[in-house]
Amino acid sequence: MKPNAKIGVINVSDRASQGIYEDIPGKVCVALLEEWLVTPFTVEYAVVPDEADQIQSTLVRFSDEENCSLIVTTGGTGPAERDITPEATEAVCHKMLPGFGEAMRNASLKFVPTAILSRQTAGIRGSSLIVNLPGKPKAIRENLEAVFPAIPYCVDLIGGAYLETNEAVMKAFRPKQKPSS
Amino acid sequence: MKPNAKIGVINVSDRASQGIYEDIPGKVCVALLEEWLVTPFTVEYAVVPDEADQIQSTLVRFSDEENCSLIVTTGGTGPAERDITPEATEAVCHKMLPGFGEAMRNASLKFVPTAILSRQTAGIRGSSLIVNLPGKPKAIRENLEAVFPAIPYCVDLIGGAYLETNEAVMKAFRPKQKPSS
Amino acid sequence: MKPNAKIGVINVSDRASQGIYEDIPGKVCVALLEEWLVTPFTVEYAVVPDEADQIQSTLVRFSDEENCSLIVTTGGTGPAERDITPEATEAVCHKMLPGFGEAMRNASLKFVPTAILSRQTAGIRGSSLIVNLPGKPKAIRENLEAVFPAIPYCVDLIGGAYLETNEAVMKAFRPKQKPSS
Repeated sequence: MKPNAKIGVINVSDRASQGIYEDIPGKVCVALLEEWLVTPFTVEYAVVPDEADQIQSTLVRFSDEENCSLIVTTGGTGPAERDITPEATEAVCHKMLPGFGEAMRNASLKFVPTAILSRQTAGIRGSSLIVNLPGKPKAIRENLEAVFPAIPYCVDLIGGAYLETNEAVMKAFRPKQKPSS
Repeated sequence: MKPNAKIGVINVSDRASQGIYEDIPGKVCVALLEEWLVTPFTVEYAVVPDEADQIQSTLVRFSDEENCSLIVTTGGTGPAERDITPEATEAVCHKMLPGFGEAMRNASLKFVPTAILSRQTAGIRGSSLIVNLPGKPKAIRENLEAVFPAIPYCVDLIGGAYLETNEAVMKAFRPKQKPSS
Repeated sequence: MKPNAKIGVINVSDRASQGIYEDIPGKVCVALLEEWLVTPFTVEYAVVPDEADQIQSTLVRFSDEENCSLIVTTGGTGPAERDITPEATEAVCHKMLPGFGEAMRNASLKFVPTAILSRQTAGIRGSSLIVNLPGKPKAIRENLEAVFPAIPYCVDLIGGAYLETNEAVMKAFRPKQKPSS
């Protein structure tokens, strides 16, 4: 039996974790997932500072203990000294998916030339797909929209939950046949 | 004197290596090379399971002992647990060529949004260019077509065989002058 | 107070460092910077052979001792055995910016299919942004032009000098608000 759909959302932000900023990016992610997915899902949620150990332990917990099929992070992907979400992601992933970062930067490049400063990546840990998103709400939608059509099939391939989208607003793509290897 | 043209083709597939599937991807690669190259070449051929040590030892043998100027792999580049061809490739390469993966994913993105799930890469070991291709025959052509124009010049630069293409079907590009460094 | 603008230019070339070739790539970089920047800046300049230790020690000196906000290298980014500038860059950087390499390869792909052979990258060391450029003068302009709009804001984010461009020839982009994390 396929596991129940559980999705992790981690807002990585020094200021949101201290309550200085309202935690908007994480809420934007949940709203987008609710808009696009018709499969019922539960959300694991965390707001953590830009500290490698806290990002990594939350990713590991959401993957290994909570069995999240998809974990999205927001923030911490820029060039500034405190921005370490991609490194923390890579540290806990068993394999990396460079195509996600490429696709998200290409999507953002349609709007701002500073899209190349984003170091967002994605990778697999066990049966969890981890995807880094930016911290700005508008950019979160632009980026997740660019890669979401591939996410349900990716989650299939790693043994996660079967995710179905509302095709009127987000068309997921599943190839008719599995690759031959 | 330039070395004779030797090309390695490695089909990475648990099922093809056990004889469950016919080894079509490897044959598709050979057919494409015969279609595009006018330089006579010999083929080193292997079908191996998705096991890091077997992929790596075959890559090393095709490079160090067989002196293949080009080695293409098929399969094992997705996000599933057994897909480890890119890691095995990186483990034996002296330098990586990230532009190949980018170009192949961009080419596939014209057809399927799941192209971002491909982790294909390319790299250099000694005088061998190693290029990961997908496992599906149709995708093999789309991907190899996208990067092949740069392959003969790359092989020149690493001291491999001089490869000439049938310009009616595949135009290779060689800059008029070498870069200044 | 923002630091004074200091920019490092390193021409990586065995032949230029021996005086066999005139050091044109480095001069092309300085000319482009003078054309595009209205902020006064001083240049740290070096011509070094394709040797990892010399490239790395020059990058470290230009970053740690000379406090260059931006360091550009030229040459040594291809697939040939002596081309090791990207590896030397990665060895001294605290974080990498894969979007620069992607954008530069995409820019060059408009002109030559061999653009995928370029292994150029960019990264951050302390308050210095390091960007690899190709060795050919024409390609230097095409590549730096593709990423320069994002450079002043990147340098802001890492605590370097405030760089202003001549908007008639090069429009830099700074988002109105900083990202929320």
